[in-house]
Amino acid sequence: MRHILIIGAGRSASSLIQYLLNKSEQENIHLTIGDLSIELARKKTQNHKNATAIELDIHNSEQRNREIQKADIVISMLPAFLHLEVAKDCLLHKKHLVTASYISDAMQALDEEVKKNNLVFMNEIGLDPGIDHMSAMKVIDEIREQGGKMILFESFCGGLVAPESDTNLWNYKFTWNPRNVVLAGQGGAAKFIQEGTYKYIPYNKLFRRTEFLDVEGYGKFEAYANRDSLKYRSVYGLDDVLTLYRGTIRKVGYSKAWNMFVQLGMTDDSYAMENTETMSYRDFTNAFLPYHPTDSVELKLRHILKIDQDDIKWEKLLELDLFNPKKIVGLKNATPAQILEKILSDSWSLEEHDKDMIVMYHKFGYEVNGQKKQIDSKMVCIGDDQTYTAMAKTVGLPVAIATLQILNGNIKTPGVQLPLNKEVYLPILQELESFGVVFNEKQVTYMGYNPNNVAS
Amino acid sequence: MRHILIIGAGRSASSLIQYLLNKSEQENIHLTIGDLSIELARKKTQNHKNATAIELDIHNSEQRNREIQKADIVISMLPAFLHLEVAKDCLLHKKHLVTASYISDAMQALDEEVKKNNLVFMNEIGLDPGIDHMSAMKVIDEIREQGGKMILFESFCGGLVAPESDTNLWNYKFTWNPRNVVLAGQGGAAKFIQEGTYKYIPYNKLFRRTEFLDVEGYGKFEAYANRDSLKYRSVYGLDDVLTLYRGTIRKVGYSKAWNMFVQLGMTDDSYAMENTETMSYRDFTNAFLPYHPTDSVELKLRHILKIDQDDIKWEKLLELDLFNPKKIVGLKNATPAQILEKILSDSWSLEEHDKDMIVMYHKFGYEVNGQKKQIDSKMVCIGDDQTYTAMAKTVGLPVAIATLQILNGNIKTPGVQLPLNKEVYLPILQELESFGVVFNEKQVTYMGYNPNNVAS
Repeated sequence: MRHILIIGAGRSASSLIQYLLNKSEQENIHLTIGDLSIELARKKTQNHKNATAIELDIHNSEQRNREIQKADIVISMLPAFLHLEVAKDCLLHKKHLVTASYISDAMQALDEEVKKNNLVFMNEIGLDPGIDHMSAMKVIDEIREQGGKMILFESFCGGLVAPESDTNLWNYKFTWNPRNVVLAGQGGAAKFIQEGTYKYIPYNKLFRRTEFLDVEGYGKFEAYANRDSLKYRSVYGLDDVLTLYRGTIRKVGYSKAWNMFVQLGMTDDSYAMENTETMSYRDFTNAFLPYHPTDSVELKLRHILKIDQDDIKWEKLLELDLFNPKKIVGLKNATPAQILEKILSDSWSLEEHDKDMIVMYHKFGYEVNGQKKQIDSKMVCIGDDQTYTAMAKTVGLPVAIATLQILNGNIKTPGVQLPLNKEVYLPILQELESFGVVFNEKQVTYMGYNPNNVAS
Repeated sequence: MRHILIIGAGRSASSLIQYLLNKSEQENIHLTIGDLSIELARKKTQNHKNATAIELDIHNSEQRNREIQKADIVISMLPAFLHLEVAKDCLLHKKHLVTASYISDAMQALDEEVKKNNLVFMNEIGLDPGIDHMSAMKVIDEIREQGGKMILFESFCGGLVAPESDTNLWNYKFTWNPRNVVLAGQGGAAKFIQEGTYKYIPYNKLFRRTEFLDVEGYGKFEAYANRDSLKYRSVYGLDDVLTLYRGTIRKVGYSKAWNMFVQLGMTDDSYAMENTETMSYRDFTNAFLPYHPTDSVELKLRHILKIDQDDIKWEKLLELDLFNPKKIVGLKNATPAQILEKILSDSWSLEEHDKDMIVMYHKFGYEVNGQKKQIDSKMVCIGDDQTYTAMAKTVGLPVAIATLQILNGNIKTPGVQLPLNKEVYLPILQELESFGVVFNEKQVTYMGYNPNNVAS
């Protein structure tokens, strides 16, 4: 019997645990599922005989060490900042580790020790980061194997609501952490490269400089730039690429409407507003508009944002009940962003039967034998229900598959890793296909941005 | 002979030193002028027999202590963050202290000790803060003495170029620290109160929500909101006031044009751009615009900011040479804000014979005997030349006058002070008038913002 310790039994652990339970007989594995909430952990075991739920306080060093020592491999589904203590204990007790989080500097610093102990600490093996790395590196490696030179890489990902559950004017519901959605794009200009030129988009223009994406069978989407398009330039080996861009996918019209909140100042998380406990939704909206003795909040907002009478953006605001004088915020010392999150949650929460959807879209431009070519690779994944969501599947399944591969010795390159090597991505992408996570790769006309490159 | 130690002989010390030298015979005082640059200190002594220049390194604790010990009173014209060491030594050697800077928490913490030693540490006694406090408190006290209750206080100040030197399309030149001008309004929403309602303006709307101000003889100005309109609410005794607003004065049209930089992201100081040493002004501008193979930087900018052909904003950009491909930034690892400052400095630096101008404008709304009334108080000060600028006069003269008043025992309330009391502001405002710093106070119709209050 091999022992897998899973720390954290939240939403993103559902598909992960399901996968491992299904394999538990055949693979001779036993899961220990630890969470601060024993209820949550117990629920996730599904009363399976190969799973044990435990109440686990990650800050209890003694218990943490004891449980890690008992395991053969540890999966940490904790928030990213809590991985480090787990990682150190894994090192101490010589256990492999798998996380879906970005490699922090502190985690990276363990690399040498991890290698020395011949351990695999696999990170960034969820959706984004995770499936994006793997699906991109697969095509990039193929292009290189046929002697191609990468000249363009654009990569987009979005967590959305499935078409059958897309019932509001924003074509959006919260399928993941709402706070991240409200704060998206803040903290610095978005930076990327287009045809060899560095470009910067400030926050106040971010949601107006989107580009459109077509996904066959799912219609038109749009994407706004991520802050850090250049993050993986070196690890993907793209230092000489002329165009490098990463973006977040939304349905068409979302960004333009979201920009209203940005322009009003409603997404600001840097200060607490006054009297937020008793403030109405209408008061909140009015706080960002000039005082006027008689003009309505509605007209003042239309005026300051120059919203025409026939602009659907207006209906989007009404749908959120932003002018309601009776709905009370009810939060103490809240920032604008916290209040906006609360207001949006009224309208954008998933209904019981709603399903979510993940869309991923890569564009690879390259030159081979003097010709410029392009491959587009697209993936759409729809959730099964509110437990086995598209997000839970795409985050959790790669983690689960990688865990088993490590346990079985198929993934064995030691060190603090992310899934960039064929050894890792090939079997995982292949197995993901059987769960409906399929990339549709297609040779298209190279578009680029340079007139000399654009096909007639 | 009484000894005054002046630490820091920069631009703002000119009028201060001139005033004290002129009084030195009559008042029997001797000035020691210390600066890191002995040249600068020497220049400021004007070879006057009652002045000595010394090279003073503020970080040299021994020398600092020795000089402070020799003085009867110390004036610190250092940058605000350097006052504390001076203040501690003043306490140690039991010397009075005068600064033109905001009272930091660390300075405030000395209050008890300062009182115990019967010393006066007078701060915020320059222009803004300084003359704003004094000229406002004078009218507020007068209103209260006649039984009035304050209901509105708005206060505006701006450092501008004098009409005779106003030679560019922006009607603006740098008369003080350019960096502060470029960063103005950043770091959080502007917060104020209008008719009892808290209002917040985000940075991206700050320069579009200005209001106009008329100053007789000088034409129309505009003002954008300061970040911290509520800062002096309590110290002015205005906790119940319905409208509280502080703003920065510019000539009409400046803010709308400045907003172009904000919208493009050129005022961002949070990240360094790539290749800034070899970047041209045109490259800089283009970095904030989408890539296009053939469209010009000019048209892309016009398009993204929606600048019509006949909009004077466009000429303002041309005047700055923002599209010049030959002018090179030449700064290493510079932020957008640092580059913008450099570009603006080419066009906005004062010519040899240029004069500057300070404009201050207060509005006081109050209720007395059931009637709503308003007093407007305005001051305009023009610089004599580039040494005795309006800024140097309005910052330095109150410091100098206060210093002499403290030395002569006329200002004697001990503690860490700011100039809010009659004992302080009356003689200083009176003497400032002889230097042309005159407030024109006028009873006007109460305007307020509430329809019930607005006179027909």
